[in-house]
Amino acid sequence: MSKKDSPLILVCNDDGIFAPGILALAEVADEFGQVEIVAPDRQQSAVGHAITMSTPLRSRSFQIDGRFNGQAVTGTPADSVKLGHDQLLDRKPDLVVSGINHGSNAGINILYSGTVSAATEGTILGYPSIAVSCTAYDEEADLSGAQEAARKVIDYVFTNGLPKGVTLNLNAPAGPLQGIKWARQANSRYVEEFDDRVDPHNESYYWLTGKMELLEEGEDIDVKVLEKGFATLTPIQYDMTAYSLMEEVEDSDL
Amino acid sequence: MSKKDSPLILVCNDDGIFAPGILALAEVADEFGQVEIVAPDRQQSAVGHAITMSTPLRSRSFQIDGRFNGQAVTGTPADSVKLGHDQLLDRKPDLVVSGINHGSNAGINILYSGTVSAATEGTILGYPSIAVSCTAYDEEADLSGAQEAARKVIDYVFTNGLPKGVTLNLNAPAGPLQGIKWARQANSRYVEEFDDRVDPHNESYYWLTGKMELLEEGEDIDVKVLEKGFATLTPIQYDMTAYSLMEEVEDSDL
Repeated sequence: MSKKDSPLILVCNDDGIFAPGILALAEVADEFGQVEIVAPDRQQSAVGHAITMSTPLRSRSFQIDGRFNGQAVTGTPADSVKLGHDQLLDRKPDLVVSGINHGSNAGINILYSGTVSAATEGTILGYPSIAVSCTAYDEEADLSGAQEAARKVIDYVFTNGLPKGVTLNLNAPAGPLQGIKWARQANSRYVEEFDDRVDPHNESYYWLTGKMELLEEGEDIDVKVLEKGFATLTPIQYDMTAYSLMEEVEDSDL
Repeated sequence: MSKKDSPLILVCNDDGIFAPGILALAEVADEFGQVEIVAPDRQQSAVGHAITMSTPLRSRSFQIDGRFNGQAVTGTPADSVKLGHDQLLDRKPDLVVSGINHGSNAGINILYSGTVSAATEGTILGYPSIAVSCTAYDEEADLSGAQEAARKVIDYVFTNGLPKGVTLNLNAPAGPLQGIKWARQANSRYVEEFDDRVDPHNESYYWLTGKMELLEEGEDIDVKVLEKGFATLTPIQYDMTAYSLMEEVEDSDL
């Protein structure tokens, strides 16, 4: 079977098309079908589900590592998936994978993450989609465990499919894979968030910083399971309706 | 009771601190307590839950309409709420309100919206939070109905509180208020998304465009209820875990 007849896999990320993590993920995707990389032309961490409406987008073709077709997009991760789907690919993808992100996308990071948003955008457009992150920020980190986890999850998705509206969010520690466990998003937030500084012109400015604080206990939350050395797989949905409150208030007057 | 002893209400938006909608919301909030406006210094629509990590943030104080304290932040809506909470306000807010957005934040727009993300960030930080949008994009639109709806919902929240982790997303048509109904987020997406053009130098570029397509029927979805002329109130949560799939797969091997 030639690659052209095999599944088409759109590979995206938020660290930019030249980050090592995206190549590591493309290598895994390549085992399953034809790889097309469509990703931001530069670092886009923490852009969340931003899309670009007030300026036009452009894309430029590259060969990534001399082996993969790549399109570098002057926009966000979600823009890249939209543009790939609508304009840049010859046919519709069978799978969207995003990553491997350099840094954890567990807990509240899920909301801020461009990596996750690229996968969520894939889901919105109707494609099975997976976000993959390694908890190590170091670009030299050993991604072999994250790659192995991604391989297992891609295989799982091609075998079992995914319900409509659901995206898989995979996180893995650096180094060899100890195993993958299903886990839910930890309720968490950042504390001590800004470093207040004064510039050479005596004007104040603020750098975002801080560390994640857990707002709940529980053995089945992604942050905790990762701390034990396992990779975590969290199904997430873009329907943000809080149905529990809906049931409670439905007949209340406003 | 002086304003200093009354509830502190942080007012944010994504259209920028000088948009008419934020003043309309500040006027309503002013009936309930002390208003502090902390918002982006420029238009930030569709930035989703972006936060700024790679550049510093600055803020500048303004009097808005000669009556409200305002801080214009060189960042996103979520940045503004974070910076207000952590650095700019004298005391912690009792309520975060975001809007009034010029344009609907129903259906899939909830994911892309900076207005909603500002409110969600308020929820993450532990404050009751409400996003308010008017479905009309026109900056001259009659916001009186959206204001009246916001007044009712703020009163509801001060009276009943909100469960932890839940944000209220309010949308209202332009013109007088016909009533507010609880509604869930419509499953929807954008189609025909990019306008492919050629620039004066013969290079192609793409403008994001397209219209929202409903992926489901149902009388209780926000988009449909708005079409009938009612305002909609949707409780949303930042826990994106798809619990239904978790239950299904928990014991499956990976």
